Amino acid sequence: MLNWNIRSSHKVQPDSKFFEEAVGAYQKTLSSPEIGFFRLPENRELINETKKVFEHFKHKKYFVHIGIGGSALGPEMLLSALGNGSGVEFVFINNIDPDDLCRKLEKINIKECLIYVVSKSGTTAETVAAMSILINMLTDCGIKEEDFKEYFVFCTDPVKGELRKLSQEWGVKTLDIPSNIGGRFSVLTPVGLLPALFAGIAAADILEGAEDIQKHLIDSKIGQDFFNLAFWIKDLHDKGIRQTVMMPYSSLLKDYSAWFVQLWAESLGKEEKGLTPIPAYGATDQHSQMQLFMEGPKDKVLMLIEVEKFQRDFPLKNNLKGESFKNLSSFCLSQLMKAEFEGTLTALQENGRHVVHLKIPSLQEEYVGQLILFAECLTVMVGELLKVDPFNQPGVEAGKKYANQWLKNHQ
Amino acid sequence: MLNWNIRSSHKVQPDSKFFEEAVGAYQKTLSSPEIGFFRLPENRELINETKKVFEHFKHKKYFVHIGIGGSALGPEMLLSALGNGSGVEFVFINNIDPDDLCRKLEKINIKECLIYVVSKSGTTAETVAAMSILINMLTDCGIKEEDFKEYFVFCTDPVKGELRKLSQEWGVKTLDIPSNIGGRFSVLTPVGLLPALFAGIAAADILEGAEDIQKHLIDSKIGQDFFNLAFWIKDLHDKGIRQTVMMPYSSLLKDYSAWFVQLWAESLGKEEKGLTPIPAYGATDQHSQMQLFMEGPKDKVLMLIEVEKFQRDFPLKNNLKGESFKNLSSFCLSQLMKAEFEGTLTALQENGRHVVHLKIPSLQEEYVGQLILFAECLTVMVGELLKVDPFNQPGVEAGKKYANQWLKNHQ
Repeated sequence: MLNWNIRSSHKVQPDSKFFEEAVGAYQKTLSSPEIGFFRLPENRELINETKKVFEHFKHKKYFVHIGIGGSALGPEMLLSALGNGSGVEFVFINNIDPDDLCRKLEKINIKECLIYVVSKSGTTAETVAAMSILINMLTDCGIKEEDFKEYFVFCTDPVKGELRKLSQEWGVKTLDIPSNIGGRFSVLTPVGLLPALFAGIAAADILEGAEDIQKHLIDSKIGQDFFNLAFWIKDLHDKGIRQTVMMPYSSLLKDYSAWFVQLWAESLGKEEKGLTPIPAYGATDQHSQMQLFMEGPKDKVLMLIEVEKFQRDFPLKNNLKGESFKNLSSFCLSQLMKAEFEGTLTALQENGRHVVHLKIPSLQEEYVGQLILFAECLTVMVGELLKVDPFNQPGVEAGKKYANQWLKNHQ
Repeated sequence: MLNWNIRSSHKVQPDSKFFEEAVGAYQKTLSSPEIGFFRLPENRELINETKKVFEHFKHKKYFVHIGIGGSALGPEMLLSALGNGSGVEFVFINNIDPDDLCRKLEKINIKECLIYVVSKSGTTAETVAAMSILINMLTDCGIKEEDFKEYFVFCTDPVKGELRKLSQEWGVKTLDIPSNIGGRFSVLTPVGLLPALFAGIAAADILEGAEDIQKHLIDSKIGQDFFNLAFWIKDLHDKGIRQTVMMPYSSLLKDYSAWFVQLWAESLGKEEKGLTPIPAYGATDQHSQMQLFMEGPKDKVLMLIEVEKFQRDFPLKNNLKGESFKNLSSFCLSQLMKAEFEGTLTALQENGRHVVHLKIPSLQEEYVGQLILFAECLTVMVGELLKVDPFNQPGVEAGKKYANQWLKNHQ
């Protein structure tokens, strides 16, 4: 099971009344019908529906995923972490950069594509734009509107929005993002599950792993540790320590950091409050950001994730004369990773930095599921403690308004 | 030419004495023989040497790049920004994650590889480890040590270190990282130039672009603007605004942000001082980090990079009924990008955020060269203003020491 330890000289004595109130508010939030992410792991209907769609389209050669923000970061993370063990080629269209899109579209044969359009609202401008381009590509190949249902799958709100309407018009198979789940909490819905199935990932095991930790996070000893962790983060926030580094020691979890960045930034950053997430990954960032983390301002909490056992390994045996080669010759690559992890952890602590040591037994479906639910729940708990609403994002509306204005002025 | 504008209500009146001193120190630094990066664009010897090596090995099918930190981030950035227009396949080994390495090595045929080992010191543990693994792969294929010179090219200090020694022993072609250039300032040396040539990038044009801006950054009107920008950043730092967001509106410049992160973090983060870089890219991060940037604490300077003209474009013409589709139907994709850029810039300013609007005419070699030299010089100038040495990285030694200890204890 995922576990964690605070490695810092900073200790907290929560004011018990405040603490109880926060725990109460948190548990109330999780049991509210408006909030759905916490109960997702038990919801096997969604995965069953997703599997049906997968079965229908599994002969496809390319999986083109159109989505941005929470509609992309979750699936990208699952594929990086757990790998693509199938023969299907993936293309993620997660931006509106024409040069980037051009490079990506050069790789596919549109006639062999499944195009998965993901948008909760069904009106996201970037997603609508990319979809229009793909429609034009299909049309240019002589494919008619009545056959679009063989190329598209949508993933959107069960009732509302333009994608839902279009799905009825075209007869396109459409998966639900339940109404009570926002984009950044949606990875365990069909948003993430369908691409996972196409990549040969045991999607059901992700849900099972998440379910394993789910109950523990609201009661039992683990729950107590969890509340203490959230309270400790909040207490450091009050003392001006307002940056949160997420640093797995794994290249394959680099995208977990990117996913976490949205979750943490968008949920907590409002009303001039918030904790700023900093993505990193080890050992690589020891040669980039670590100087700052080690000796810069003491304004960060560092969450280091250790993967206890890698699935593959490489002996470093060699007969070269140089000291650096000799020094490594009796080890395996995973031991060097372990040494660097331990070395950095010790040095950070010695330098008076605030570290959380997270550990998963290996990079397998169930533990990725646990990492996901853990981060989501931690975000909500810290939100309750900071007294911000972790589920809204009012700050992105103004930019959209001005963008629309620009378009109107350039019609 | 690259240009920039401060878009913020915060104005500075530099104390003229302090300002003059800082400019003087900066110019002295750049003309010091110990500091080489600033004069790199004029140094055509390095590129000529690099071209010779490229000519010798250009028949290779795979380019395996082994390096970490500054030995990897620069070349990765060049390839993302400018594309791989050649038939050569690239593999970057920039970490010691066994599972990740396994995925990467599965893609190559070792007999058709050029293995480019990049390490200034020639003793970087991660690089030595990866190199040992590749040596074992060659040996397992029956390739003898006397033939290694047909598979390896090294890039290291001109005199010192184990790679240099090994290059003599094996007769391996070896390119120089000049002694007066540190890893994070090395992208315009063979570190970045050799992979660029293999990718079909006009490497000489990158240098020419950098040379175009070089002189301007120490005198003329542009130089004055530049010093003012650095001073403005320093002044905001003194007022507690100590995070620097780098946000190009381009997927292809996402890795420019990653490269900038090392430059900024490792150069400025020391003695409990420093500015924390935050990587981002638009429009994608409008759906992730923008909520925090817009409404979180006012502790950030945001550098937004606009690419004025994309090289490709896509019409968004469609005949769908939904409002969101109709709204876009008369535009091209690049116009939507422009609209979102302008919309976000306006909203950020309106929200009292501190923005720098950088602009390049297009994503071509010369402008990438300008972006590189601009960021390097800005880093040094801000370092002078903060009175830190931007060229050292003392804070990573302790971690290395403890890592070595761990290895000794587990011999």
